[in-house]
Amino acid sequence: FEGRATDPDMAARFAFWCEADRLKSVIRATPIADGSRRENSGEHSWHIMLYARVLADHAGAGVDIARVLRMLLLHDIVEVDAGDTPIHGAVTPEALAAQEAAECAAADRLFGMLPGHQAREFRTIWDEFEAAETPTAVFAKSIDRVQPLLHNLSDDGGSWRTYDVKLSQLETRIGTKITRGCPDLWPYVRAKVTPWFVARGAL
Amino acid sequence: FEGRATDPDMAARFAFWCEADRLKSVIRATPIADGSRRENSGEHSWHIMLYARVLADHAGAGVDIARVLRMLLLHDIVEVDAGDTPIHGAVTPEALAAQEAAECAAADRLFGMLPGHQAREFRTIWDEFEAAETPTAVFAKSIDRVQPLLHNLSDDGGSWRTYDVKLSQLETRIGTKITRGCPDLWPYVRAKVTPWFVARGAL
Ligand SMILES: [Ca+2]
Repeated sequence: FEGRATDPDMAARFAFWCEADRLKSVIRATPIADGSRRENSGEHSWHIMLYARVLADHAGAGVDIARVLRMLLLHDIVEVDAGDTPIHGAVTPEALAAQEAAECAAADRLFGMLPGHQAREFRTIWDEFEAAETPTAVFAKSIDRVQPLLHNLSDDGGSWRTYDVKLSQLETRIGTKITRGCPDLWPYVRAKVTPWFVARGAL
Repeated sequence: FEGRATDPDMAARFAFWCEADRLKSVIRATPIADGSRRENSGEHSWHIMLYARVLADHAGAGVDIARVLRMLLLHDIVEVDAGDTPIHGAVTPEALAAQEAAECAAADRLFGMLPGHQAREFRTIWDEFEAAETPTAVFAKSIDRVQPLLHNLSDDGGSWRTYDVKLSQLETRIGTKITRGCPDLWPYVRAKVTPWFVARGAL
């Protein structure tokens, strides 16, 4: 009976879940909604899956919502090795290339812990998300961008204050991506966040 | 343009996401895998969705894995109002009935924040999970039971120490439920946790 604990596929899966658990200790730039502390990437992944499911009826043609959920479930796991990259941090092309290389190596190592067929399946989903070409990946990316805005807003600016963000930057870095994946969403969100930037003269 | 911020369906959704965010401040009895702190119900929800997806090939006939993910995404949101009930805590029938009533009221309030068709959809999924009758719900419930065992094991007992749990109790309260939803899993997990209980003479 004790021998059952040596099933190699099951052992591989438990090792993977334990490694993935470290995502709960990767701390993001943005706060949780009540502003009491910064958010970790594990709880963030859960929260944006909830955004995706609630916005399913705003997804365009060709978006597979069940696959969006699988993408968002997996999309941040590489941060266990590669860390989180704040969207508003200043980045050189060199730093960006180094981050991409680190994330690819992390995907190799972490998804590679799973039994072969599953390692390939998870890697394929993550690659599709990163490439941001299919309607499903583009929608998933837009969802990943909207939640931090609302948390920053409820925390009197949150990481916008940290990085001295202007409304025009938000439009370029975030608005275009949200519009690409979920066009109905950006006019609403933009109208919600605009007064904060106007009040600070941060246009 | 500013008027777009008054779209009532979108406003209802943002209010729901903000309320659901409080799940990140509901603290469970079990630790995260490295034992450094107790887990919150938001990150727990993400983690067990990862368990479910990885165990998809162990799901029995009639289990809809995409629906399992939707169930696990939503299953703990009622804890925002009703709190978490540790599985090993002593409970009277009265306390259990009060907890069930509190969770139903929480489901009414929280899912009821969403636009009507979505409120009904989310409530239907949560009711199916709670009833634990369909193969999909039974599988989802079994997944919810297995992750805390592994975290307790990696934290030298975790909440088993807090509640002075015996192996026989684990078999009754947890093992039967895991076996019902995912029969391949329990022999492996039981073999993994048994040495800890044997070493403490807690049979
Ligand atoms: Ca629970």
